[in-house]
Amino acid sequence: MKYVKSFEEGNKDERNLLGGKGANLAEMTNIGLPVPRGFTVTTEACNKYYENGEGLGEEIENEIFTKVKELEEKTGKTFGSTTNPLLVSVRSGARVSMPGMMDTVLNLGLNDEVAKGFAEVTGNERFVMDSYRRFIQMFSDVVKGYPKASFERKFDEIKESKGVKFDTELNAEDLKEVIAIYKEEYKRLSGEEFPQDPKEQLIEAVKAVFRSWNNERAIYYRKINEIPGTWGTAVNVQEMVFGNKNNNSGTGVAFTRNPATGEKKLFGEYLMNAQGEDVVAGIRTPQTIDTLKEVNEEVYNQFVNVCNILENHYKDMQDMEFTIEDGHLFMLQTRNGKRTTAAALKIAVDLVREGMITKEEALLRVEPKSLDQLLHPTFEEESLKNGVVLATGLAASPGAATGKICFNAEDVIKASESGEKDLILVRLETSPEDIEGMNIANGILTVRGGMTSHAAVVARGIGTCCVSGCSEVKINEKEKALTIGERVFHEGDWMSLDGSTGNVYGERIETKEAEISGDFKEFMSWADETRKLQIRTNADTPRDAMQARKLGAEGIGLCRTEHMFFETERIFNFRRMITADTLELREEALSKILPYQRSDFEGLFEAMDGYSVIIRLLDPPLHEFLPHTDNEIKELADSLGMTFENLKARVESIKEFNPMMGHRGCRLDVTYPEIAKMQTRAIIEAAINTKAKGINTEVEIMVPLVGSESEIKFVKDIIDTTAKEVMEEKGTEVDYKVGTMIEIPRAAVIADKLAKHAEFFSFGTNDLTQMTFGFSRDDAGKFLNDYYKNGLFENDPFAKIDQEGVGELMRLAAEKGRSTRPDISLGICGEHGGETSSIEFCNSLGLNYVSCSPYRVPLARLSAAQAAIKAKKN
Amino acid sequence: MKYVKSFEEGNKDERNLLGGKGANLAEMTNIGLPVPRGFTVTTEACNKYYENGEGLGEEIENEIFTKVKELEEKTGKTFGSTTNPLLVSVRSGARVSMPGMMDTVLNLGLNDEVAKGFAEVTGNERFVMDSYRRFIQMFSDVVKGYPKASFERKFDEIKESKGVKFDTELNAEDLKEVIAIYKEEYKRLSGEEFPQDPKEQLIEAVKAVFRSWNNERAIYYRKINEIPGTWGTAVNVQEMVFGNKNNNSGTGVAFTRNPATGEKKLFGEYLMNAQGEDVVAGIRTPQTIDTLKEVNEEVYNQFVNVCNILENHYKDMQDMEFTIEDGHLFMLQTRNGKRTTAAALKIAVDLVREGMITKEEALLRVEPKSLDQLLHPTFEEESLKNGVVLATGLAASPGAATGKICFNAEDVIKASESGEKDLILVRLETSPEDIEGMNIANGILTVRGGMTSHAAVVARGIGTCCVSGCSEVKINEKEKALTIGERVFHEGDWMSLDGSTGNVYGERIETKEAEISGDFKEFMSWADETRKLQIRTNADTPRDAMQARKLGAEGIGLCRTEHMFFETERIFNFRRMITADTLELREEALSKILPYQRSDFEGLFEAMDGYSVIIRLLDPPLHEFLPHTDNEIKELADSLGMTFENLKARVESIKEFNPMMGHRGCRLDVTYPEIAKMQTRAIIEAAINTKAKGINTEVEIMVPLVGSESEIKFVKDIIDTTAKEVMEEKGTEVDYKVGTMIEIPRAAVIADKLAKHAEFFSFGTNDLTQMTFGFSRDDAGKFLNDYYKNGLFENDPFAKIDQEGVGELMRLAAEKGRSTRPDISLGICGEHGGETSSIEFCNSLGLNYVSCSPYRVPLARLSAAQAAIKAKKN
Repeated sequence: MKYVKSFEEGNKDERNLLGGKGANLAEMTNIGLPVPRGFTVTTEACNKYYENGEGLGEEIENEIFTKVKELEEKTGKTFGSTTNPLLVSVRSGARVSMPGMMDTVLNLGLNDEVAKGFAEVTGNERFVMDSYRRFIQMFSDVVKGYPKASFERKFDEIKESKGVKFDTELNAEDLKEVIAIYKEEYKRLSGEEFPQDPKEQLIEAVKAVFRSWNNERAIYYRKINEIPGTWGTAVNVQEMVFGNKNNNSGTGVAFTRNPATGEKKLFGEYLMNAQGEDVVAGIRTPQTIDTLKEVNEEVYNQFVNVCNILENHYKDMQDMEFTIEDGHLFMLQTRNGKRTTAAALKIAVDLVREGMITKEEALLRVEPKSLDQLLHPTFEEESLKNGVVLATGLAASPGAATGKICFNAEDVIKASESGEKDLILVRLETSPEDIEGMNIANGILTVRGGMTSHAAVVARGIGTCCVSGCSEVKINEKEKALTIGERVFHEGDWMSLDGSTGNVYGERIETKEAEISGDFKEFMSWADETRKLQIRTNADTPRDAMQARKLGAEGIGLCRTEHMFFETERIFNFRRMITADTLELREEALSKILPYQRSDFEGLFEAMDGYSVIIRLLDPPLHEFLPHTDNEIKELADSLGMTFENLKARVESIKEFNPMMGHRGCRLDVTYPEIAKMQTRAIIEAAINTKAKGINTEVEIMVPLVGSESEIKFVKDIIDTTAKEVMEEKGTEVDYKVGTMIEIPRAAVIADKLAKHAEFFSFGTNDLTQMTFGFSRDDAGKFLNDYYKNGLFENDPFAKIDQEGVGELMRLAAEKGRSTRPDISLGICGEHGGETSSIEFCNSLGLNYVSCSPYRVPLARLSAAQAAIKAKKN
Repeated sequence: MKYVKSFEEGNKDERNLLGGKGANLAEMTNIGLPVPRGFTVTTEACNKYYENGEGLGEEIENEIFTKVKELEEKTGKTFGSTTNPLLVSVRSGARVSMPGMMDTVLNLGLNDEVAKGFAEVTGNERFVMDSYRRFIQMFSDVVKGYPKASFERKFDEIKESKGVKFDTELNAEDLKEVIAIYKEEYKRLSGEEFPQDPKEQLIEAVKAVFRSWNNERAIYYRKINEIPGTWGTAVNVQEMVFGNKNNNSGTGVAFTRNPATGEKKLFGEYLMNAQGEDVVAGIRTPQTIDTLKEVNEEVYNQFVNVCNILENHYKDMQDMEFTIEDGHLFMLQTRNGKRTTAAALKIAVDLVREGMITKEEALLRVEPKSLDQLLHPTFEEESLKNGVVLATGLAASPGAATGKICFNAEDVIKASESGEKDLILVRLETSPEDIEGMNIANGILTVRGGMTSHAAVVARGIGTCCVSGCSEVKINEKEKALTIGERVFHEGDWMSLDGSTGNVYGERIETKEAEISGDFKEFMSWADETRKLQIRTNADTPRDAMQARKLGAEGIGLCRTEHMFFETERIFNFRRMITADTLELREEALSKILPYQRSDFEGLFEAMDGYSVIIRLLDPPLHEFLPHTDNEIKELADSLGMTFENLKARVESIKEFNPMMGHRGCRLDVTYPEIAKMQTRAIIEAAINTKAKGINTEVEIMVPLVGSESEIKFVKDIIDTTAKEVMEEKGTEVDYKVGTMIEIPRAAVIADKLAKHAEFFSFGTNDLTQMTFGFSRDDAGKFLNDYYKNGLFENDPFAKIDQEGVGELMRLAAEKGRSTRPDISLGICGEHGGETSSIEFCNSLGLNYVSCSPYRVPLARLSAAQAAIKAKKN
């Protein structure tokens, strides 16, 4: 037997061959639970079916009939018998649960003759006819693909004509009428009589399930869930048990624990005198599971016992289907139940406490990405009920926010200063000048820009809710008004945003804050004990640093000093610096910025007392700091005391064809060593000042965009000279390290040479990905869709590290770096540092730390723990 | 002895230690030629001098005095003796000749006493005083740095007061007056008496020469000639022989062969009764060397003999200095003589014929880069004499051109159609639309843009003379006029350009064509026998291909199909294609372009009969083909039948932030497979048509910008499917290969996977350099100057392959490519394919071919031969 297996022959580990449902039916059979007998047509048969050009072929058909024979022997029932007929259910079951394509046929084996005989034998004509009408309907739907609605409508017509509300109120005669009408409808649609041969019914049903693997909704479901099409589905053929036999029969679904909260209490519902889908279809209202105790205590107790056995056996919360046939319990399915993140945490922690699983097993049970749900404000449920979704944009940065609308960052600042706490910033798109306002607002809504637009990136960085690219919003900036459909909003009107769904609401919806406590906290402490990677954060302000530390960060892996330049006073002096004609004027302007930088750094060092803080020298091209419209240039020229023409010429002269590959990073320091000098001075002075206060932070200075040994030497020399100068002035010493980003392919190739000078490497995988693939993130969005559509790329390389290409360069750099400096500290500070598969990859390279935005820190802690566990297993 | 060596102790191979001059003086001494005795203070002493903070230190001084002692013993003369004084010359001599810093002091050892006594002993007071006045002047200049001019003026005053014209007309008394005045001037300038101690004189002179190693002109010279500052200079101290002793004495310089033409005939000049620099200083007019025979046949014959010995010994044309002292010949210097390229070729070929050197040695004698001089038109010398340089821009593309000024490409085309042959295109800067006009013009002059601007790159590609970035030219496009300084030129006025110097002339200067024939041809045939690398060309048109084949190209390594799109009819349809809304419209527009492409390809295949032709699919981003000003957009919209707004929106929508990293190369084929289909069809149809004519070209189709295996698979599939389709339609088969560019770092990293599908790799080192360094060529110009200035980069990585970074990726790709497909064909088509050090690197990687622009082909042939010879040696 190659393609068909009895339940007795399988077990839970054969999920790939038998599908999830089949494997678990086999497992339950083998541990002695009451499972109706049956067999599984394997996923290999499914693949064979497609190889055969959508045909089962003789071999598989023969195997199926051999198993039917066996089933007949075991049950004493016979296919097509009018006295003791074998009836079966036929259900799909893929390797992983695919709720989008649950194709099921019940009561297969019935035909006119069998129904007649079976009714006589059982003395329960109503039950048999109910089963037959269900079978015809399901067969028409699942096997033939005829619209379900047309059969349902007929059924409703009959109920109406009989003056009844529920299906159970129809008697045998009524149901015979239904059957006659169904068969007529079937003939009308197919041009043939309803098939009477049970074997033909069975083969058609199996083929229909296989066919359903490639229906549109299944393909779509697989695509969004990254399930390969090559897996195929299995088919489970199982002796029928009848929940619709009488009022002592029924069917239900249940979870061993509450899937929403994780509470250890049976959770589910059932319906007496009903079959399969009646429970979910909502024809009658099902009862909660605990009421079963009153209906039939014995069955209830037996079910509770089965639940315990299953949890103990699978060591996880189970999601089960069952049927009661005339007072006898039968299990039709069990699987690990889907759950909310909160439930997942509670269940994992409880199972450890109950001694069922180890901490490591618990850590593997929670999807790191899902933790994010627990870290952001959410809407109060009651309040949300009043919300109406007016528009939906991109879910750019999670969380819920409510506030009064402002149309620019300045207005946000003003409103905030006048005491307004809840503000929403709405912009066509944001720009670096908006940072301060974005920091204050509860949420940000933009009309243009994708998941990686300025607004989205900054918002995720600061943990503020953001909906981006919501093109349904039309903004009139002059009037300070916006329109969504027919509705017009003005400045000060309330609006709410859900950054986890992209929903935009036109009213105030109350929100509540999240916190890491209780089970969550305990769970995270296990992750911390387990992981090898240190988790740092990317933080540019003391506020971010504090937030990140609350979320578990152990140091700062990346402080982008340029983000400190955007506040009013600073940007003015920074622009003076950029537009200065002489070294003296530049140094003079820089000296004005120095105190701000120093005090920022002091704040960071204080927030990260006891940990490392990596400060990156100025990175972006200078034109990012200059205005670009004539009006803005005019205004700036006035305040700088320059002519418009001169400033305009300066702005034009520093524009670049490919700014991503332009004058930025350490290249700026080569042209303007005075910038690196000022920044070093600010860092060292801050370190001296905080050290004097008893603060104990490791200071690390990072040089960006290094591609050659001469660059790191040149900048390190400036740093060392300046640091020495400052320490001599102050008459005191502080330790500091100098390291480099690895974000240029060439840096990876010559990492051994860089490591001669750099005490640490930080992989800047955002830029490294851009340069390695040779496409800019800003532009790639336009054509990468064609890549996904045509199956050229499976993942967004800006989301998950491209291990084959970018990762290979990382591996090379790590290896080469260690060859010259065995104790070199290696980390990552690109956005990949907050993504699970990338963190696992970093763990495999033996990096020392990953650094991510504050709100990704818990995800990173858990991912790192999972990576360590998996690495140990291999 | 560590720092000083006698001539007897050295030889010609110790050039690094002794400097060129010292090594050759030692060599001549040891082969028995008449060389005044002496010693060399080594380059290591020079480095020590700088280590000592510009001091010789005791050790070196002691060694010098020991050698002086030895010299006294050998000569029987004594430093400071009034009866038989030792006088010496002190000359610099670095590892390579540095004519910018020739510091020499003659007659050192003279002082008032010595002069007096020496005059008495020799009975030739005039000669001694002439020597002393020369010494004071040289010492003041070289050692003290006092302005030469002030001494020269005094000398001229004396001559005037005595009523004589030449120095030789001054008698002893006159010269004593000169000496007195000189010593006075020295005292005035230094505040001290002229130093009388010969040892002090010597030490000061040695230090002065060492100091001169780091004077401004030496630093500048080293920089432009890529000579490391760490080399240092040596100092040669040598017994004086006196060309100014009497009229039977003299001094001269000569070459063993003519350095301009290579003719085997002594070439040089001499002056009787003169010392050192008199010959070059032009005080008296020197005689040509052959007249020496009449003056002193014995010395002449001896000199001819020495020349023969030296040529036979060094096996190369020699450049020599000599002095005749009272009828005795002394050799003061010999070295391999500098020569023009024409001379270098003739000399190398002659030396082989004379049996002096092997062909391989001959091939190493010619600088490949210099061949370029022989390949472009040059100005007729007579005509050039009338030329006045009005301005100088960048020497962007070599050759000489003369013609009537046109201010845009259309006017060039019109003028050409009306029969005008000589045209010069003058533009602010050129753009792809100008290609046709650029092709027709004799020369191109642009106001903006550097060595790698559009004009420069295209001009080099098509071998047209170009002067770029000539900012002295002010253009008034409306008036069709340009101004240089005061002069105004109008359309149709004559102008001439020298693309090898950047000179712009305001008149017609006749030019003459170059050709490969005679010695040049024979020499190149030796290169072809020797090299391992095949030399292909980058050619986009049959004209270029033909030109390249004349210059020795063996196939086309890169045909950029996009260059074919710019002619009027084509660009119109191409723009229709880009702006089309639907696949149908795009295909329709492409079908209009197909016949042009096919006929271009047919032309290429015919031109390269017997060789390979690699055709690259469309590469640049589409916005390069669209106009950008509103006026042009309006015009195009009208002709396309679109609204201005729609077209403008389309133009905006395909603009990119970083076009270098944007939607181009194979990424276009993923979005618009119909483009690859059209191009494949054109290629295969052309191949079928030319094959039918008996043409036998290997067709290779190249996919640009591949970074992932899925991309090459995707595009190869389109190519194969389309090719099969075309062959079936035509009922005939042609062979073709499919390969990929390696120009994205990721492609190098996954080359093993690409090689599964690609039958050949072509390294696109222009883009690979950009991506590997992470800077765009268009922007890097601005900051790379700071890199050179600060010594961070030694070479322009866009000119010479960066072997450490980019080269490492190439090595990796070659290795990985061969691991999957051992017989994979590997080549290079970036501009580096025409640069000597890069070609040597390609040879070391074992590439199959290099491809370069047509006019670089001879350079590449010779470079490849040299690389093969060097590889064999190692």
